[in-house]
Amino acid sequence: MKLASLKGPTRDGTLLLVNGDLTRAVEASGIAPTMQYAIEHWSKLERALLDAYESLECGNERHAFDFQAALASGKIAAPLPRAYQWLDGSAYLSHVERVRRARNDKVPESFYTDPLMYQGGADDMLGPRDPIRVLSEDWGVDLEAEVGCIVGDVKMGATPAEASQAVRLITLINDVSYRKLIPQELAKGFGFVNGKGYNTLSPVVVTPDELGGAWDGGKVHLRMVCHVRDQWFGNPNAGDDATFSLFDLISHAAKTRELKAGTLIGTGTISNHDKATGYACIMEKRLVEQVELGAAKEEFLMFGDSVKIEMFDHQGVTIFGAIEQKVEKYV
Amino acid sequence: MKLASLKGPTRDGTLLLVNGDLTRAVEASGIAPTMQYAIEHWSKLERALLDAYESLECGNERHAFDFQAALASGKIAAPLPRAYQWLDGSAYLSHVERVRRARNDKVPESFYTDPLMYQGGADDMLGPRDPIRVLSEDWGVDLEAEVGCIVGDVKMGATPAEASQAVRLITLINDVSYRKLIPQELAKGFGFVNGKGYNTLSPVVVTPDELGGAWDGGKVHLRMVCHVRDQWFGNPNAGDDATFSLFDLISHAAKTRELKAGTLIGTGTISNHDKATGYACIMEKRLVEQVELGAAKEEFLMFGDSVKIEMFDHQGVTIFGAIEQKVEKYV
Repeated sequence: MKLASLKGPTRDGTLLLVNGDLTRAVEASGIAPTMQYAIEHWSKLERALLDAYESLECGNERHAFDFQAALASGKIAAPLPRAYQWLDGSAYLSHVERVRRARNDKVPESFYTDPLMYQGGADDMLGPRDPIRVLSEDWGVDLEAEVGCIVGDVKMGATPAEASQAVRLITLINDVSYRKLIPQELAKGFGFVNGKGYNTLSPVVVTPDELGGAWDGGKVHLRMVCHVRDQWFGNPNAGDDATFSLFDLISHAAKTRELKAGTLIGTGTISNHDKATGYACIMEKRLVEQVELGAAKEEFLMFGDSVKIEMFDHQGVTIFGAIEQKVEKYV
Repeated sequence: MKLASLKGPTRDGTLLLVNGDLTRAVEASGIAPTMQYAIEHWSKLERALLDAYESLECGNERHAFDFQAALASGKIAAPLPRAYQWLDGSAYLSHVERVRRARNDKVPESFYTDPLMYQGGADDMLGPRDPIRVLSEDWGVDLEAEVGCIVGDVKMGATPAEASQAVRLITLINDVSYRKLIPQELAKGFGFVNGKGYNTLSPVVVTPDELGGAWDGGKVHLRMVCHVRDQWFGNPNAGDDATFSLFDLISHAAKTRELKAGTLIGTGTISNHDKATGYACIMEKRLVEQVELGAAKEEFLMFGDSVKIEMFDHQGVTIFGAIEQKVEKYV
């Protein structure tokens, strides 16, 4: 199943079902008014959602509309327009190693067994075509392309195996970061508040079965294709070099708390040891340039600059649709 | 105005208006189904809420019920049962100084001008009589008695003066902390995930006008009376020794993001330089004991131990009602 949200009439949007090739969509508000509602009542509603999805796939749905047109005109919200909880892990130690090196910091041994994780803002998640709005270019605006999952209720102390049962939906995430604000903020010791921007989610979220064999062991074994300023930037494989799976990260988050339905868990920026796969954030490229060329060359995002983040199946078909955003001045 | 929430039928509870002395309450669901809804539509609904509140105060409300009975039987949820965002500052540097000293850490100069703040979990906030449920007593369970405010929409880059206009409601908060998990977690550099428990809110939240002259400059100039294990533990004045006001903290949080309606902002544990006022968390008492007696004596909370947190006006009348909780084993 592929699901999305139309903007309005409330801040939680209107739940949509979208067909496999993302051409047609239908409002699912007769089954569940919002994505949050659907996730909270998943076991009760799943059958009805599946029936409506199959009807849409068969072309039987009379109320379907052109999803690509709605997307192009900015009517599509983040599939989950706001979330009660957003916890972002750092599954790809290659990213952490490069970023820490850039901060003249090293990776503690414990990071290889105990996941690094921060809690961030999710009171407003951007739609896949919404601009990244910032007050200043001097913040060092960067993308972070990640895979995330939205879970149902998770009990406190859940093991990774138990956590695996709670995964409802998979999404792509652009976890916007303000690189030049982060060093001072992290030095204060309490994590990120000013150093992170809004999350953007992909046009649709999908149930794990939509990924077929590419969803294995709590990892998505597919490449995350990133473009920056209309140039190819990287296509690291989200299934490679991940020290922790999404199951591990959910379990880590739930060590001392229940996670309530609708919690979004991220993998952290995807990064492969193989530099030929490029990057899913600008920071890493700059670090490698610094080491190899003596100076960082790739600039952070300026007003007007674009990013594009997408993932394709083995037939080259887009799974989640593309996140495509430009940086704008906030007014 | 004083507002609360009844548990159910949804996770967001049912909005209540409660009279000044907290004896009678009435469902406000004809005006707004939930607290979150009321905050999102505040300017439109405030007049109708005020009318219903005045009717309740006059004793004209036929559908009113006994609020204290509902509270005693566990039917009262946190006034905002779940929030899209919870950002906790550290306004009381006396607390930070004592806690850092306990960690063999010192307070950086910048902390006196640049607020320390972390983002925490708010997908499930505890009602004022709900138990604090933990898997292990070994976590070092501690209370943190704080003042907090719930805001309407705040624009990015809002000044403290602009932030002051967004304050809708004031609450007491018990920001439960797991002291023995915190040092290792903070050492990882990304803030708290496992080190903090659920927040508990007071039985009611109040509009700032209910505080009269005690609400001044973004601070509540009243004592926070704390009991631990049925013993007086402290009554630090929330208006004293606060380096930052709630207006400063909202403005800090909004530096690089909009804050959406329903965001909860906390002051951090209240703490006065005057040790005669006691403490609003066990950690601080232990540190002072360590320095003065050579060893910490006050134990962290064990299963069955109780905490009580309350604030009174100058006539000795409770404003928010009491947070009263026991620690329980999570099963």
